[in-house]
Formats: sequence, C-alpha cells, structure tokens
Amino acid sequence: MQTFAYLSHKVTIADIARKLSIAPATVSRALNGHPAISEKTRKLVEKTARKLQYKRNNIASSLRSGKSNLIGVIIPSAEINFFGSVVHGIEKLANEKGYNVLIYQSNESNEQERKGLETFLHARVDGILVSIAKDTTEYDHFLDIREQGIPIVFFDRAKEELDIPAVVVDDFKGGYAATEELLKQGYKRIAHISGPAHMDVFKKRLQGYQAALKAHKIHFDLQLVVEGYVSIGSGQQATEQLMRLPEPPDAIFAVEDFTALGVLKQLKAMGKKVPQDIGVVGFANEMFGEHITPSLTTFDQQTVTMGKEATDLLLQLLDSSSKTIAQQKIMLEPIPVIRESSQRKK
Amino acid sequence: MQTFAYLSHKVTIADIARKLSIAPATVSRALNGHPAISEKTRKLVEKTARKLQYKRNNIASSLRSGKSNLIGVIIPSAEINFFGSVVHGIEKLANEKGYNVLIYQSNESNEQERKGLETFLHARVDGILVSIAKDTTEYDHFLDIREQGIPIVFFDRAKEELDIPAVVVDDFKGGYAATEELLKQGYKRIAHISGPAHMDVFKKRLQGYQAALKAHKIHFDLQLVVEGYVSIGSGQQATEQLMRLPEPPDAIFAVEDFTALGVLKQLKAMGKKVPQDIGVVGFANEMFGEHITPSLTTFDQQTVTMGKEATDLLLQLLDSSSKTIAQQKIMLEPIPVIRESSQRKK
Repeated sequence: MQTFAYLSHKVTIADIARKLSIAPATVSRALNGHPAISEKTRKLVEKTARKLQYKRNNIASSLRSGKSNLIGVIIPSAEINFFGSVVHGIEKLANEKGYNVLIYQSNESNEQERKGLETFLHARVDGILVSIAKDTTEYDHFLDIREQGIPIVFFDRAKEELDIPAVVVDDFKGGYAATEELLKQGYKRIAHISGPAHMDVFKKRLQGYQAALKAHKIHFDLQLVVEGYVSIGSGQQATEQLMRLPEPPDAIFAVEDFTALGVLKQLKAMGKKVPQDIGVVGFANEMFGEHITPSLTTFDQQTVTMGKEATDLLLQLLDSSSKTIAQQKIMLEPIPVIRESSQRKK
Repeated sequence: MQTFAYLSHKVTIADIARKLSIAPATVSRALNGHPAISEKTRKLVEKTARKLQYKRNNIASSLRSGKSNLIGVIIPSAEINFFGSVVHGIEKLANEKGYNVLIYQSNESNEQERKGLETFLHARVDGILVSIAKDTTEYDHFLDIREQGIPIVFFDRAKEELDIPAVVVDDFKGGYAATEELLKQGYKRIAHISGPAHMDVFKKRLQGYQAALKAHKIHFDLQLVVEGYVSIGSGQQATEQLMRLPEPPDAIFAVEDFTALGVLKQLKAMGKKVPQDIGVVGFANEMFGEHITPSLTTFDQQTVTMGKEATDLLLQLLDSSSKTIAQQKIMLEPIPVIRESSQRKK
C-alpha cells in the first residue's frame, strides 16, 4: 500500500504546539498568517517550525497517477442496517488488501444512482460495488461504466440479464423456507406482502412462497399477495387490506423486516395477537427485530460474508490485466432466525 | 453544475440494443470485442453504432481541473441511524447546490478516520464534514487537512479547542432536560450511564445531569455515574452494576439510545418493570426506540437540520475566496420525545 505524505512526515503541528506550550490551532493559524495571531507569535512559530524541520504537506505529492486504490460502493440507503453491515464486510477485506472504501447513497433513486457513478468516476475509483436502487428500471448506466474500463460487481440487488458479476442471497430458497416455517407452525392461510415486482430479490422471494405452497398442495390465492413498497407504512397498509378480506390470512410473510414491522404494528392496533392469532415472518435480520415485542422471525442474509465475497470478485477483476468481465455469480444461503413472531407451537 | 459526458451524450448502448432488438449486454460485449460475440453480430453492432453516431465516453473529458464539486463526509458508523439521517440533510442541501456527497465510515477508529481524510484528498473533494470517532483523542490530522486548504466542518461530535466550525446539539441542555423529565415523574435517585469522558457530547450531557440535580437540591452521588461505551452491551453491564448498589437507583438516564436499549434489556432480565419500578431515558431518537416495548423516551437531535446547517457552513467556506476559517458554532435544541419508559404518572 502506498504511504501518504502526511502520515510519513515526522514533525506535525502538534509537535510544534507541544514545544511552545501553545494550542495546535494557534500554530496552524500562525503558519497560515491568520490576522488574530500576533507578529511575535507568528515569528516564534515559524522559527520553531524551521528548527524542527517541519514540512508543510502538499496534496499533489501524495497523488499518484495510475491506481487510486479506492473502491466505490453505492448503497440504496444508509438507514437500512443491512447495507451498513455489508459495507463492514467490504471494508474489512478491502482494507486488508490496501484499498479504501467510499460510500454513496442512492436514496433508492435512479437519478441519484447515476450521479453516484459519475461521482465515483470523478473520484477516480478503481472499481465499483453496487446494490441497485428501488427506482431503477433501466440499466444502461452500469454498462456505460463498464465500457469505461471500471469493473462493477453487484451485491444483494443485482440484475441477471446484465451479465455483471454479483453476490446475492438465494432469495427463492429464502421465500420458500419462510413460507414453510409458517406451515410447520400450523398456519394454513399464508399471505405475502411482496416488494416492487421489477426487482429480482423480491420477485424471487415471491416465487419461493408460491413454490412452497405448491409443494404443500395449498391453493395459491392471488388475493393473499399484496405488492408493497418496502417500508413500515406499506406493511401497515397491506395488512389492513389483507385483514379486510372475507377470509383473512392467519399468517403473513413480509418480504423484508421494515414491512414486517408495519405488519406487527397494524396487527397490534387491530387487537390481534402474534403469534397466537397470526404468525409473522420477515426477511433481512435488521437490527430492531431482536428487540421488539414479539421479537421477529426473519432470515439473515450473511451480510458480512456478502460484502467480503463481492469485494473478492471485484479484486479479482482489478487484478486481471485484461479486465474482461466473466459471468460470475455467488449465491449465499439465507439463514433462518426463528424468534417469537412465528412460534405458535412453542 | 458541470455536465457529465455520459449524461449529455445522446445515443446510448440501450439505443443501439433497441434498434437491433438485442440485449444491451450483447451490444456492450460486441463493442468491447468479447469473444462470445460472433463476427457477424459485432459488425452489425459497430455499423449501427456509427449510423446512430454513438460515441464512446471518455472519463478524461469529464474531468475538470479545479473544483470537483464533491463533499466528503466522515461518519463513525453507518449502522447508527442517527448518522444516516444527518447524511440525508447533508445530501439534500449539497445536491441542491450542485455538489455530490461521498461517505466514509471511520468505524469509531482513529486510524480509519485518518485514512478517510487521506482518501478524500485522493478523491479531490472540495470540503469535508466530520463527526469525530470515539477512539480519537489526538486531533492534528484535522489541522493538517485544513492547512492543505480543504475546509472542514464538524457535526455532532466536535472538538471545541480546535477552532473548527461545528454544528452540534446543545448537549448540556439535553442532559439537564432528560434528568428533569425523570424528576418531574417523581423519580428520586437518578443514575447516569455516560459515554467516554474525552468526548464533548458525552461530557456535556453529564454536566447537564449534574446541573439538574443541583438545581433540584439533590445530592450528587458519584456511585450513580457509570462510564459506558455507547453500546447495548455497555448499557447492560452498567445496569447490572448500578442495581447491585446497596441503594440502587429508581431511574436511569442513558447517554444515548443503544445504551438505553441495553438498560431496558437488563432490567427486563432482572424482572424489573419500566416505568413502574424504574424510569429510563435515552438520547438521540434512534429508529428502534419507537418500536420497542416499553417505547423509549429520548431526545431528538434534529438530524436533518444538523446536516443542512453543517453543509451550509461548509458551502460558505467554499465560497469565500480567502478560505479563512472563522470560528463559528451552531447549537441546535434537543427536542424531547416523551414515550412510555419515563411516564410513571401517566
């Protein structure tokens, strides 16, 4: 890893400050000719600086041409613990390998996501990791970046057709297992609150749900699937709609934990008991699920592993001299985290 | 704001793909000479690209010398909602003014924080916003950056002595109000779990706690203050220690919400009822506080406003031709969010 000018220089402002028993801020101001500093102090500081062989840093000297050793990561939102946790995994491996990591939030907006890619070009990153925004339905910006010779790897939210390497969770299996967990607990009429249908992650959880019903010879009732928008409010709304059905569900599999939290809140407001009256399962193992009452059954997505694997793929691409991107996809197992909200038989 | 080459060009890979009714990925591969693409397809794609006057992008053309229009933000952790929410405020104003925002996580480590500053230098940001890491006890790296002519503004976790502009919450007032809220509810023996003493934010909340006791003529008992480490586990440990006292407290003011969550968990494990037996107040209004049982009384730190004000200060510094940094400090009011955990009198 490169060394940076200001870490390798020996004498700092703090040293001068210590020598003169004055505040580092005063030293800094004196060296910068701040008007609040007296002529006498300024001269004393400058003299001491010379004596200690203090050298001002120069950004330019620490900039190398060629590699920046920067990796850019685009996450949909820093307010979802899931992504923060993946970033931990990314940073761990990246730092080990001498790379630094910059994060950009798309805030689930396609426009912001495009801006994030531009920003990373300007910041001269060597490679980019992306989890696609909810509002993104066209994908040419990713191909454009790749054409510039900047490798991209998707994590969690990928788009298969693009032929870009990705690390994802086996969402089909997760949806299947979530549904089966509820069936195992004796629930019979299981609803699903899905996410936006254009997103692979959510589509596959829905397909897993349908496959589990089929495997258990349960009729698939279209009324029991409500498309949500991955938020607490959307979980509340969908639950209200589901509970108004002539034959309401006795269990709800929510596509992710914020939606599931909305389900729990709405059921509580309606006086329904979880898990006695209705079972609830979420997905993603967000931090709050462990602490609410009832605690939330969910599926862990191996966030740290996901971050590491995605970084590993990217580093492989950065290593190869050809920079040809081979189709490569890593699927992680979703890990069940069984808590109170689904355990009727406990 | 500058326009970027690949947003301003008219014809994209997607256009060529649409024209030929093939996948964008195929077009991309064809243009890059990927071996999986037949000679025939490659020629067809190239011909169409010429016909549509498709131009490959060139990063270099979109890079200007001078301003990058990038702002770098160093946050201690993306897993604390508080910081994600401040970043929202930062992005909102920054984007309006034509700046893009890059985030770097220090993971509460001084070394990572220093690396973050270097990384931002390499990424050629125009200015930097920082919330100081828990492990940082020396501050010369901030002064070094400022000497390079890169303006810095602190938010939330600042260091007064450095003479660097900052936007903070009035933590003294917050600590005072939290303690008074518990007194108002009739609690008499109020403990405080503090944060690391070298950090201004935590020190001031402790001072507020002491001042409120004094104002209400309550003897300050040193046994009732435990220095924690801003985590769930630290809240659990401190609570265990406090409840083992010969005269245990009847209320606990935790320095922030994760610590308070640990308090609630430990009290629950010990069979104590909140707020009947013991009152609990946190600080920061983290997302989970609203959803746990009992819901957590806390203080909101006006995160979005904080982000905007910090960005506004930074933009002012970027605007001034002199780049002289005037001492400037903005204090926001902490807003009480009264919930179940403190309301014994309800």
